[in-house]
Amino acid sequence: MLTSRSNGFHRVWEVRTSRAVSYDVRETTDALHPSNPTMLVGSRGSSRRFVVVDEVVYRSRSERLHDYFAHHGIEAKIMPVAATEPNKTFELYFAIARALDGFKLNRRSEPIIAIGGGVLSDVVSFVASTYRRGAPCIRVPTTLMGLIDAAIGIKTAVNFDRAKNRIGTFEPPAAAVLDRQWLSTLPMRHVLNGVGEMMKLALICDRPQFELLARDGREAIDDRFVTKGTSIFRNAIDGMLQELEPNLWEENLERATDFGHTFSPMLEMADVDGLLHGEAVAIDCAFSVVLAWQRSMIDAATRDRCLGVMVDLGLPVFHRLATPEMFWASVEERTAHRDGYQRVPMMAGLGRCEFVNDLTYDELKSAFAVWTELFGRIAA
Amino acid sequence: MLTSRSNGFHRVWEVRTSRAVSYDVRETTDALHPSNPTMLVGSRGSSRRFVVVDEVVYRSRSERLHDYFAHHGIEAKIMPVAATEPNKTFELYFAIARALDGFKLNRRSEPIIAIGGGVLSDVVSFVASTYRRGAPCIRVPTTLMGLIDAAIGIKTAVNFDRAKNRIGTFEPPAAAVLDRQWLSTLPMRHVLNGVGEMMKLALICDRPQFELLARDGREAIDDRFVTKGTSIFRNAIDGMLQELEPNLWEENLERATDFGHTFSPMLEMADVDGLLHGEAVAIDCAFSVVLAWQRSMIDAATRDRCLGVMVDLGLPVFHRLATPEMFWASVEERTAHRDGYQRVPMMAGLGRCEFVNDLTYDELKSAFAVWTELFGRIAA
Repeated sequence: MLTSRSNGFHRVWEVRTSRAVSYDVRETTDALHPSNPTMLVGSRGSSRRFVVVDEVVYRSRSERLHDYFAHHGIEAKIMPVAATEPNKTFELYFAIARALDGFKLNRRSEPIIAIGGGVLSDVVSFVASTYRRGAPCIRVPTTLMGLIDAAIGIKTAVNFDRAKNRIGTFEPPAAAVLDRQWLSTLPMRHVLNGVGEMMKLALICDRPQFELLARDGREAIDDRFVTKGTSIFRNAIDGMLQELEPNLWEENLERATDFGHTFSPMLEMADVDGLLHGEAVAIDCAFSVVLAWQRSMIDAATRDRCLGVMVDLGLPVFHRLATPEMFWASVEERTAHRDGYQRVPMMAGLGRCEFVNDLTYDELKSAFAVWTELFGRIAA
Repeated sequence: MLTSRSNGFHRVWEVRTSRAVSYDVRETTDALHPSNPTMLVGSRGSSRRFVVVDEVVYRSRSERLHDYFAHHGIEAKIMPVAATEPNKTFELYFAIARALDGFKLNRRSEPIIAIGGGVLSDVVSFVASTYRRGAPCIRVPTTLMGLIDAAIGIKTAVNFDRAKNRIGTFEPPAAAVLDRQWLSTLPMRHVLNGVGEMMKLALICDRPQFELLARDGREAIDDRFVTKGTSIFRNAIDGMLQELEPNLWEENLERATDFGHTFSPMLEMADVDGLLHGEAVAIDCAFSVVLAWQRSMIDAATRDRCLGVMVDLGLPVFHRLATPEMFWASVEERTAHRDGYQRVPMMAGLGRCEFVNDLTYDELKSAFAVWTELFGRIAA
């Protein structure tokens, strides 16, 4: 609604409206089977598609990909890209935007299809959200991280000047298409990368999910979640969407999903070639468990159980490059991101979240010493 | 609302929500007067501000600007930039984003203040909308184009690879602060630049505004709209916001405000150092008037009156670089932007809009010949 009023001298126009947001996160099986139309939604009849695919995925599926679109009579321009954290930059953004120009994408009726992991999803979604001020994007995650995190929310991003996700938008996908079959060829390290994010959410707000992970996580990981671990997988998505959906634009900056994301961002960028996002998150979670115990927010038994399950599942819980100074600098950077308050999500019991604003460097340093000592003991 | 359902094999999560949008376009007088708080809204108490200002404006107002913020006890980082069409690029975007990093902007409580014309407004708003996925931005337009167009809607943009506004977002400003005093030092050519956009809207959907422009436009222009032409000025904003507000995200691609923006985009980029946006729009409008007459959508008297008033007000109605081939290429590019249909807004009588999808190159070429001939006669 537009209203305007004058006070005699000046006029004020008040723009008051809202934008509807609607998207489906949809499980399917064998998205590339010719009879499976799930990836082709939202086209309004166009027979062209621009497809960005992770080059690793493309290597093992190029034939099936081309066959799939050919079967549906679709003229597909398939662009394989190297989508790793060091490539999550405006260079990759520009390459994709230029290819869209070359393709002469119709702005609304030819959804861009993004097939790959979290990095690819973030970058392609950012291009889509800004190309001609927004073209639809179908996210087809091929990693566990993509399936349970990156592809299902509305965040898009690139890194900038080595600052993680410094630039991006909030823009819902046209749809997210979840097919666990992609995971059958996923390197085990990338399976654990996704489990890091699952563990984060379990620790901070879902105790039953933690118990499931403790009981069935190993078996699910061994199977790469392709057929096993269905409950854990769906719980992870339930939990993530329940946290995200009431606060999609982060109007509330106290976010339980930020657990594991307070101390790690600088570590992740310091070892950008060596560390995956979910690994950095797991390391942050392990440190946060120690910090919560030091604050008497959890007891020693809970602390040891949490760390024990993480180690048993194969999650990383320590990193040689971490220092108290780096973790503190990361807290300060996050404080700017959280608009001047720390708003650090902390465990107040297993599966319960409280936010704290009074972390000090000394406290962090002392927890760091305990963490280092504990890690040596656990790892031994 | 988040709902999920299963069909026995697969689960579907449906995210259904909406984002509230609310902003004021607020007239004021002497925004830089120490007693005027209008530019300082939305801070939640922060005493820091990052201010991007057009270097031309800065040259004549640097002292007042610094005094203004000092008077309010605000630590202001003022960044003057050259904001011209050739600079409307990612280079400028990166320079501003880096300066924001240096400033350590708090994400939500320190609105970025953008003081300048349409180009500056577009670029700073684009940075703001993507920096940490969105920081608030107060737009303070200093040109007529900014006041009645660029600053009051929700579009943001940069040019990319010489394609005009190829990259951008839809993101409402925190507020737009309209102060006509800035215009007192505006070069006359930039006054007419804004009148080009006013004329566009009058021709396509506001006959009374056209009559006002015909009657009082000259006087208002001579006064640079500082005190004269208040009705024309406010009608222009009324008209623009009434067109924009029901369709802020351009879900409907038939937009009357696209009048003057179908044939000109390539001309504007072909003469990027020589032509202002509103000049390109006026030239497009003049051609469109001829085209509408050739289609019998307006009669010859209306055609000549429209062109006559434009010429009388000093608006450009022709350009030596224009060719039928260039105009047609622009139609084709706009067709991709409008998702596969031409959707060209055309005058169906003075102040009435209809959309056409059946323009042909031959028709355009024939109108071009008449336009060239007419222009010679009118300009003589």
